[in-house]
Amino acid sequence: MRLSLFDAHRLGVWGLRDSIVDISDLIDSSIRPDDRMNALIEHWPQLRPAVEIASRSVGTALSDVVLRAPQPRPTKIVAAAANHAAHLQEMTTRGSTQPSGTIEKYRGFLKAPSSIVGPDAAIELPYHDRRIDHEGELGVVMGARARRVTREDALRYVFGYVPLLDITMRGEEDRPYRKSFDTFTPIGPAIVTADEVPDPDVLDLQLRVNGEVRQRGNTAEFIYDVPRLIEVYSEAMTLEPGDIIATGTVDGVSRLVGGDVIALTIEGLPTLHMPVLAADLRPSTT
Amino acid sequence: MRLSLFDAHRLGVWGLRDSIVDISDLIDSSIRPDDRMNALIEHWPQLRPAVEIASRSVGTALSDVVLRAPQPRPTKIVAAAANHAAHLQEMTTRGSTQPSGTIEKYRGFLKAPSSIVGPDAAIELPYHDRRIDHEGELGVVMGARARRVTREDALRYVFGYVPLLDITMRGEEDRPYRKSFDTFTPIGPAIVTADEVPDPDVLDLQLRVNGEVRQRGNTAEFIYDVPRLIEVYSEAMTLEPGDIIATGTVDGVSRLVGGDVIALTIEGLPTLHMPVLAADLRPSTT
Repeated sequence: MRLSLFDAHRLGVWGLRDSIVDISDLIDSSIRPDDRMNALIEHWPQLRPAVEIASRSVGTALSDVVLRAPQPRPTKIVAAAANHAAHLQEMTTRGSTQPSGTIEKYRGFLKAPSSIVGPDAAIELPYHDRRIDHEGELGVVMGARARRVTREDALRYVFGYVPLLDITMRGEEDRPYRKSFDTFTPIGPAIVTADEVPDPDVLDLQLRVNGEVRQRGNTAEFIYDVPRLIEVYSEAMTLEPGDIIATGTVDGVSRLVGGDVIALTIEGLPTLHMPVLAADLRPSTT
Repeated sequence: MRLSLFDAHRLGVWGLRDSIVDISDLIDSSIRPDDRMNALIEHWPQLRPAVEIASRSVGTALSDVVLRAPQPRPTKIVAAAANHAAHLQEMTTRGSTQPSGTIEKYRGFLKAPSSIVGPDAAIELPYHDRRIDHEGELGVVMGARARRVTREDALRYVFGYVPLLDITMRGEEDRPYRKSFDTFTPIGPAIVTADEVPDPDVLDLQLRVNGEVRQRGNTAEFIYDVPRLIEVYSEAMTLEPGDIIATGTVDGVSRLVGGDVIALTIEGLPTLHMPVLAADLRPSTT
């Protein structure tokens, strides 16, 4: 099933004939609209049968609604650092000042939930004199509270998967700062439930900018696969339902400029399209 | 006013004669209890008069309730890195592998909200073979949504202040990972509203371990003061009501061991007492 928020944060499941079926009424009306996906995830075992039935009907045409970020309010976004040998190589070659090492060394970082946007918005580049790159990634949406979960059990804690862009300003600041500017975590257009992605570690991933392929890889190339990421992160911190793990990017990252349009395609998931805007609200940070 | 959550996340204001007055009924009953402080902050202009009246009465003795983390669910915790010259010096001297630089270079990082605990809990040291330190800090609780706020306006966006411990595992992993283990962000026992702290940048700070003073300083020593931190962070990311800024620590950080008891005293705020537990649930990460 493909789950989205649309229009005024209505909760929807993709139905037959490229449509979306409004299932907001399954969620308690006292829940704030942008928390509806959290509520759905939390009550998924009870709500799932009704959602499945809805997905077999015809709703509003997808082309007639505005799709938003499907999970705008995770309690946290945990992100893998240096999880791909070829991406690591390209970063080192470019003279990054980051000390060399892989995910074994860095483990991971956090991105601010306030950086999340959906395909209804644009990536805003805040400074014209700083290099800001695209990193296309598989996002994992947690389905249950996970604490010290072993890799063997890990996938049972996953709710679904979502295309995710980890937009990144290069430089010497700490990763969470460089990667948490508003609009720097586009996700969407839908979360695909885990039953439709039996193995998240064999998925082709392709990112195009203005139609040109920039990143191409497969999640099999990651140093830590999804179960290992869940094992490592849940050993340190409790992962809550709705939390997102950004699993890392492949090589081919490149600089964005205003006017670019990104398309991130991950096997089995709907494509995420994001325009890029040169916001340049201040001439420079430094 | 001093605001706390206590017992089953009841919302309280400290009243006369070392008491706490239950003001949970001011908050809509559909709000989850651990979101009550968020709701109070969001509706503070309307609720403030009633809270002020409550604070002038006598409630339950503070010694008869269990005080919890007063803000368990911020949407994010932004933390200052290397904001104090003497603390930076001691980190460099000890042969830290972190590249040298101050907050001007690093800006800041994020801590996971799941790492928050209150004085009802303990700091758990997950590994016996890793050095884990205390960092005593002034926590700033945001009162209003802040985006690209100037330092001149910054303090108007502050709701209050809270003693905060930024518990830190030393090592080469990314800061957010090393600082986001469960129980690594104790806060409390109360948020003191901003009207009682006219200038957050002149406060004495003292941290004792088992009665012995380990850290002593004044927030005036910070490289970025509170208005500048708000300016810098809100330029990158929207700060939401209830979000917490950890403003950085002074020198004197030292290693914790099981059985330690920390007392963090910041001028004008109630003292935070936290016990330390050697959890050692796994012998080693590596």
